[in-house]
Amino acid sequence: MIYEHERLDELHRNGYKLIQDPNRFCFGIDAVLLSDFATANEGEDVLDMGCGNGAVTILLEAKTKAAHLYGLEIQKENCDLARRSVALNELSDKIDICCGDICEAKEIFSGKRFDVIVTNPPYMAKGCGIVNPKDAKAIARHEILCSLEDVISQAGCLLREKGRFYMIHRPYRIASIISLMREYEIEPKRMRLVYPYEKSEANLVLMEGSKGGGEEMKVMPPLVVYNEDGTYSKEIHEIYGEDWPG
Amino acid sequence: MIYEHERLDELHRNGYKLIQDPNRFCFGIDAVLLSDFATANEGEDVLDMGCGNGAVTILLEAKTKAAHLYGLEIQKENCDLARRSVALNELSDKIDICCGDICEAKEIFSGKRFDVIVTNPPYMAKGCGIVNPKDAKAIARHEILCSLEDVISQAGCLLREKGRFYMIHRPYRIASIISLMREYEIEPKRMRLVYPYEKSEANLVLMEGSKGGGEEMKVMPPLVVYNEDGTYSKEIHEIYGEDWPG
Repeated sequence: MIYEHERLDELHRNGYKLIQDPNRFCFGIDAVLLSDFATANEGEDVLDMGCGNGAVTILLEAKTKAAHLYGLEIQKENCDLARRSVALNELSDKIDICCGDICEAKEIFSGKRFDVIVTNPPYMAKGCGIVNPKDAKAIARHEILCSLEDVISQAGCLLREKGRFYMIHRPYRIASIISLMREYEIEPKRMRLVYPYEKSEANLVLMEGSKGGGEEMKVMPPLVVYNEDGTYSKEIHEIYGEDWPG
Repeated sequence: MIYEHERLDELHRNGYKLIQDPNRFCFGIDAVLLSDFATANEGEDVLDMGCGNGAVTILLEAKTKAAHLYGLEIQKENCDLARRSVALNELSDKIDICCGDICEAKEIFSGKRFDVIVTNPPYMAKGCGIVNPKDAKAIARHEILCSLEDVISQAGCLLREKGRFYMIHRPYRIASIISLMREYEIEPKRMRLVYPYEKSEANLVLMEGSKGGGEEMKVMPPLVVYNEDGTYSKEIHEIYGEDWPG
């Protein structure tokens, strides 16, 4: 089930493991923070748009009592990785990995509406320092195959009324994220800024929106990643969980 | 120059003082944070939209080498207070207080363009718990005489190309603030969240925009007001200045 060039990493949730290919995009703190920030209630259906190797999808399965989780991913090799991890953790009855384009999500899930959509989309604008646009990591990091507007517009179509949208992104795009969410009727409701250190600029933003919701945004307490001495902060330790070695 | 029911408060900048009427809106931490966040370069012209008793206008004169500062205020009694404070501090050649409606700012300053516009507008949406809409404090706090859109649209007209806009507001309006700034071509460039305590939700937001600027927003380090023991944080002490008694 695992190829020689791959590795098997612990997810530190329910004993779940994740198959990762070091040549492709491997999950980092973003996936952990997004799955911590997002919520899914008992019986809700969740879609992870651009699920990569399935890290966020599997972490959310571990954390919530969601009825069913769907991962949508355009790169076939990532789908294969994600599917093997789903099987390895015996989650095939709870998680479906769909190979397809975010830009066609509405058609792929035709008629279906989700209670929750989560996404950790490519952060970098198209054309910014891309060496090889066919490279698997470049596709995961840059808006080569889908733009921020593609992600948000498709989410707007696929969420049920009052369904929740969760995204992690870079703060430099906050104005576009908020404008686009409004344009596609996902009202921004909860924002959390992630600051590497207490005295540094934010380098990540977590955003929650509500499809068709009214205006009332909350800005959650700052999430500081490192203590002054470079060790992880207490809250980051809590998010990663007790048995996590870092 | 000062009436019996008024008081004379120290601004702790250049020895400046401010005449305040306890029956009207008196300046608080918002004015201090806004004037700290805003910048004006040597020779620039500044407009303070809704200047109240002139606190922010006078604080900015103390901090910067702006060429000239204009305060626009609709309540005649506030204009009178602000003008007397300007005279008291011998700033009549640097500061003009104009009595007028923000909604007519474009006509009031017809043809004039500003390098910098600052504003500490009413925070509360119209109709939210107003007892007396003619009350001076209600007008300062609620969107009775001008809406958020009025403030931002007028600022969009009155800023020169690449001119800077600075606002302090409540986080619950962030989505509207950003959408409206974009609509009136003031690109959000720098945002700072103010958190009462390290572990609490933000209760103020400082926003900088650039007229006609390109997308690239920075989120500055969190500004935490109080230490855990309820005393002011080191940064708040630095902002207020050394000779400030609090």
